[in-house]
Amino acid sequence: MSNCIRTVFYISDGTGITAETLGQTLLTQFPNVEFEQVNMPFINTTEKAINAVRTINENAKNSCGKPFVFCTIISDHLREVLKECDALFFDFFETFMTPMEKELESESAHTVGRSHGMSDSKRYLDRMNAVNYAVDNDDGITTRHYGNADVIIIGVSRSGKTPVSLYLALQHGIRAANYPLTDDDLESNMLPSALEPYRNKIFGLVIDPIRLQKIRFERRPNSKYSSMGQCKHEVMAIKKIFKRERINFVDSTAMSIEEISTTIIQNAGLKKYIRK
Amino acid sequence: MSNCIRTVFYISDGTGITAETLGQTLLTQFPNVEFEQVNMPFINTTEKAINAVRTINENAKNSCGKPFVFCTIISDHLREVLKECDALFFDFFETFMTPMEKELESESAHTVGRSHGMSDSKRYLDRMNAVNYAVDNDDGITTRHYGNADVIIIGVSRSGKTPVSLYLALQHGIRAANYPLTDDDLESNMLPSALEPYRNKIFGLVIDPIRLQKIRFERRPNSKYSSMGQCKHEVMAIKKIFKRERINFVDSTAMSIEEISTTIIQNAGLKKYIRK
Repeated sequence: MSNCIRTVFYISDGTGITAETLGQTLLTQFPNVEFEQVNMPFINTTEKAINAVRTINENAKNSCGKPFVFCTIISDHLREVLKECDALFFDFFETFMTPMEKELESESAHTVGRSHGMSDSKRYLDRMNAVNYAVDNDDGITTRHYGNADVIIIGVSRSGKTPVSLYLALQHGIRAANYPLTDDDLESNMLPSALEPYRNKIFGLVIDPIRLQKIRFERRPNSKYSSMGQCKHEVMAIKKIFKRERINFVDSTAMSIEEISTTIIQNAGLKKYIRK
Repeated sequence: MSNCIRTVFYISDGTGITAETLGQTLLTQFPNVEFEQVNMPFINTTEKAINAVRTINENAKNSCGKPFVFCTIISDHLREVLKECDALFFDFFETFMTPMEKELESESAHTVGRSHGMSDSKRYLDRMNAVNYAVDNDDGITTRHYGNADVIIIGVSRSGKTPVSLYLALQHGIRAANYPLTDDDLESNMLPSALEPYRNKIFGLVIDPIRLQKIRFERRPNSKYSSMGQCKHEVMAIKKIFKRERINFVDSTAMSIEEISTTIIQNAGLKKYIRK
């Protein structure tokens, strides 16, 4: 069985994001098994469901092991159709919905595509405005709009400020600006005066100089910018400023964008955009 | 029971993204129940687990209904601690892992934080490079790097190109450039010559003029840019170009970023970054 590639189908009436998130989290727990993942989004008619069953059964026939299906379909009828497939079937909705309905003494709405659609247009617009804000206030382009920021992320060039700001905006509707501390800022050993009025919104990133050097080298090889000496100097200087100015900061070296963002939200007490 | 606000706790040893995705999808099915959602990420020690139980029990005592807990903790020990809480407890790991282990004839690794961490640094770096690519190639700044694009999204100003490009990059590691068609481009009634060599990578967005007008008005009120006439004219002109040039396109009016992105991935046959 060990060389068997398992196919994993994500079946959903919407984007498939919930099914994928669910499935991928589980798959990471089997590092020695090879999986092939297939997303089947927008399965919202009987015909599409029957076609999906056909594809899965075809796969089952030609594979060494049963395929896995992670299904977040809400319609009872479509779920019945899909369950006929020859696979290990994880029915997300049925598994969790029944105990919830019982506890809430309320039937669920059976509404399709609410979780990653735009059912609440006011909140959705807020989120889009946060994305525009993050793009317009990336990389210290301007500090004029910092009054409207929820958080201002500062750090040396390539410490992860931009992806973190964009993630906070896109996923959580948080207005995140970011500002790179330059050589001049670092020399001064204090917070740049443009940032001073917003110090309670500032969150710092630091990074290991060895990793920073690698990232910069890929961008601009054989430059002062990507030299080990420069990276070490900048990281040391910025840490000194963060400590001196009592700026909250996190070391991004071994953390993913998601982990850094979660840490910032938690430490800065930010309010996230909530879908429901 | 109907005026009772339910508290929902997301408990995880990592970011809590899986727990939140899971929970929020289910909560959207109860539009008449009010929920308060609390994320408790990075619960990775016995002490933190005991504190979480204390918080949940405090809530249970002071609320009109049992709180809900969506738990993605992997450690058996910590899960045992948490299960002692007075709540409707959804144990994500146990629910799905046991049947998977049986089918795979393999024990799961019980490794913490793999799904939204940076366990695969090569792939993670690809994803970060995609984000840099999207930022560097936003809004037609330059067409020089279009040879490296996975997809080039085109549309009129404010049709959703930037958030979609950023989402594709951040979530899926797809190198997405975007290019706004200007008045001159629209007059010519053909694809701008700079895009011609890349026509097989191009994906179009259209949007309802009424919605476009609203979005533009918020940005630049009382301008030609945000006038109804201009919006109608641009949308009509771009649709004509898409049809004439046989460009694949999608109407973004009633779609979320996630839905537009999923549609583009599906229709353009793009390969996503897969976590596992």
